[in-house]
Amino acid sequence: MTSKLAIALPEHSAHESSLNIQFLLTGTELMVGDIVDTNSVMLAQSLKDHGAEVTRKVTLGDDFNSLVAEIEHMSRTADVLLINGGLGPTADDLTAEALAAVIGQPLEENAEALIHLSAWCDRRGFNLAGANRKQIVLPKGITIVPNPTGSAVGFSVIHNQCHIICTPGVPIELKQMWQQEILPQLIPYLPKKNKVKTVKIHTFGKGESAIQNLFDQHLADWPQAIEIGYRAASPLVDVKLTTRSEHAESLIPIWLPKIEALLGGHVLKISTVDANTAEALQQPYTLAESLVGLLSKHQQTVSTAESCTGGLIASNITRIAGSSAVFEAGYVTYSNRIKSELLGVKRETLQANGAVSEAVVLEMAKGALAASGSDWTVSVSGIAGPGGGSDEKPVGTVWICWGSCSQLKTQRLVYPTNRLNFQRFIANVGLDLIRREILNIDEMPSYFLKKGK
Amino acid sequence: MTSKLAIALPEHSAHESSLNIQFLLTGTELMVGDIVDTNSVMLAQSLKDHGAEVTRKVTLGDDFNSLVAEIEHMSRTADVLLINGGLGPTADDLTAEALAAVIGQPLEENAEALIHLSAWCDRRGFNLAGANRKQIVLPKGITIVPNPTGSAVGFSVIHNQCHIICTPGVPIELKQMWQQEILPQLIPYLPKKNKVKTVKIHTFGKGESAIQNLFDQHLADWPQAIEIGYRAASPLVDVKLTTRSEHAESLIPIWLPKIEALLGGHVLKISTVDANTAEALQQPYTLAESLVGLLSKHQQTVSTAESCTGGLIASNITRIAGSSAVFEAGYVTYSNRIKSELLGVKRETLQANGAVSEAVVLEMAKGALAASGSDWTVSVSGIAGPGGGSDEKPVGTVWICWGSCSQLKTQRLVYPTNRLNFQRFIANVGLDLIRREILNIDEMPSYFLKKGK
Repeated sequence: MTSKLAIALPEHSAHESSLNIQFLLTGTELMVGDIVDTNSVMLAQSLKDHGAEVTRKVTLGDDFNSLVAEIEHMSRTADVLLINGGLGPTADDLTAEALAAVIGQPLEENAEALIHLSAWCDRRGFNLAGANRKQIVLPKGITIVPNPTGSAVGFSVIHNQCHIICTPGVPIELKQMWQQEILPQLIPYLPKKNKVKTVKIHTFGKGESAIQNLFDQHLADWPQAIEIGYRAASPLVDVKLTTRSEHAESLIPIWLPKIEALLGGHVLKISTVDANTAEALQQPYTLAESLVGLLSKHQQTVSTAESCTGGLIASNITRIAGSSAVFEAGYVTYSNRIKSELLGVKRETLQANGAVSEAVVLEMAKGALAASGSDWTVSVSGIAGPGGGSDEKPVGTVWICWGSCSQLKTQRLVYPTNRLNFQRFIANVGLDLIRREILNIDEMPSYFLKKGK
Repeated sequence: MTSKLAIALPEHSAHESSLNIQFLLTGTELMVGDIVDTNSVMLAQSLKDHGAEVTRKVTLGDDFNSLVAEIEHMSRTADVLLINGGLGPTADDLTAEALAAVIGQPLEENAEALIHLSAWCDRRGFNLAGANRKQIVLPKGITIVPNPTGSAVGFSVIHNQCHIICTPGVPIELKQMWQQEILPQLIPYLPKKNKVKTVKIHTFGKGESAIQNLFDQHLADWPQAIEIGYRAASPLVDVKLTTRSEHAESLIPIWLPKIEALLGGHVLKISTVDANTAEALQQPYTLAESLVGLLSKHQQTVSTAESCTGGLIASNITRIAGSSAVFEAGYVTYSNRIKSELLGVKRETLQANGAVSEAVVLEMAKGALAASGSDWTVSVSGIAGPGGGSDEKPVGTVWICWGSCSQLKTQRLVYPTNRLNFQRFIANVGLDLIRREILNIDEMPSYFLKKGK
């Protein structure tokens, strides 16, 4: 099926000088808190990457009269009204019916939609019958917008000088229709010269406010043309530099190195934002990805000896494709007995110092290096909580040991928070410490400067 | 500060017989895809718990003229218009200014807001100065709505017979203001007799459509009064039974057991939904929670021997508070050499069968039981991908072994998907198989009935 969607707008839009794009999201599940809206986030981000913004977003339940009134109302101020949802086969899918009422046209079986749905059913060995047939009954006079994956076609019509485009609610179907059919039609009207570029600096070990304070102190002459933003990608923090002109973009090579110098070893990676995926929906960059990349490059291996993180460091590493080349063994030694049996931690060491101690993590690390033969190792023992704390060793206390056969380092940290956040943060600290060793970073990481109790 | 917010509505609202509640969300960050809206989800869910629904939800960027037009427009159809966001100290926070324009009142320093903000600053050792002062400049004639935590007070006014309530965008502040100040005022107008109750059946091992088909076949006479819904809480599936009347609720004890009988060992837990937290924002129930609870009850322990799941089973278990009583040791044996050295898997076994084989997982499990002395164990070896597959053992192939010293069982599964989903699902299968052993569930889990290649 070839697209016939053709968006043609006046040089200067009827409503405003820049394109007025509005979204109408439909579905009772969006109104009663059953699902979180991510579709409009994806579209908004995609528009932003082209220098454009959504003017207005309305969400309605599956109510015929409200839909009719809202479509009519929005079409009066929008150049483009994108309606999302309500194209499904069930009785509460009302978009086609409402649009027909708005434009004063009858509903009819659409020949092109029938061809699409028949082919879709054939591929799945279904009979085209019953409820599904509803999806080919569309307002007279609309233009079909192909759906590469789903059963419901999109459709478009001009009303009140507004291009109304109806799209499916299933995220993957919407995304494909947007990228393949709708966005290419819109691009000629989007502010090209104002194209937004974003550079992301992925960091670990400094909090958002600490980074902000550092910049306030040292980058007082920062150019207004480069917007700085922060995003907590827990436990990482991303610093975002956004430029909206070629001039601003040309300043990045001057100013980015100043940030890199200030953040030093806390920078994991610099990347440009993928324009095809909404930022809020992207898989975040991880420390494990950084570490596995480094180990692969150096053809080295790492092992883990975990007590309080309970396998999370190993799991973070092995989540990364290709980690089998750099990771051979992980020891989750939760009890004292297993610390001794598996890693050779001496019972006297445990008795004299307790499991959460420098001596114990040192012996755990030595045991892991000896048993696994890995180049690097990291061991952790701490109190994740909520129970198990004492005055001397409160919840959040942890000892870490990391390094190689030639040198092992140890450090105590106190990071009181809930169990899950503690495990996540400490697992990342473990990964970060190995990364710093491989890169020969001398500077002290920020998380060691905090004073524990 | 005591609340003066008093919502008084006519017996029969001016607009409709049921309360017309609308949300206006403001903030450019919501429009450009920088953040996902969870505030309205929380409020909608809370309203739903009281039998009410949001009629309409509009999201706008920080644009003065649009805000003024929208507030005026919405106030004409809503009984209650809740405006969220735009109360902060910076120039793009425009809610007070826009509301003043809508109601035709000047902005002035509000004495009550000043007291609140002074106290807030005092507690933090800040001086009340500069940008923060903006937060006490409010439209004349409004009623203050206290903010228990944040610097910005809420405020309310009646316009076009509509109660307009302005609230802060910070989720925790909104939540407290909603629960302590706004909801209690609304409750007299919400449909009490129609109070919604939800029972959730947490399941693992059957897909959403498989459950739906099962119900279609065996529960043809299901009473309309109990709504059935499904929620993928990956990899769990929650079945939700919603009732909206006392009569409907009285049917639950008759019908819930029929569902339990149909789903058998796939049911992990039955719970009633917490009315205070939006469902989409709740921490999901996990298989590890179920297993740790069972092991604790029986005073038994488990160990893990993981290859392709790389520590995720151990990590899932140790994420649960109190898991140290039931979990002692986890072996992450990623390489063949480590499988032999750590768990005593014979080199001949590996050579003859390959690492992904019944013989290897059996020896891994035996090794883990012997080394850890645990009551139960589970071992897995498979191909998580994206590389490493073959015709005979495609990506997604996994062998699992589980049980105790008295009996070990093995099974092969093929679950082709991406690496992360594969690891998550297989880790949960591992936890589930131990759960089934402890509970003596004879029936075959659904995920074993699928035919692999």
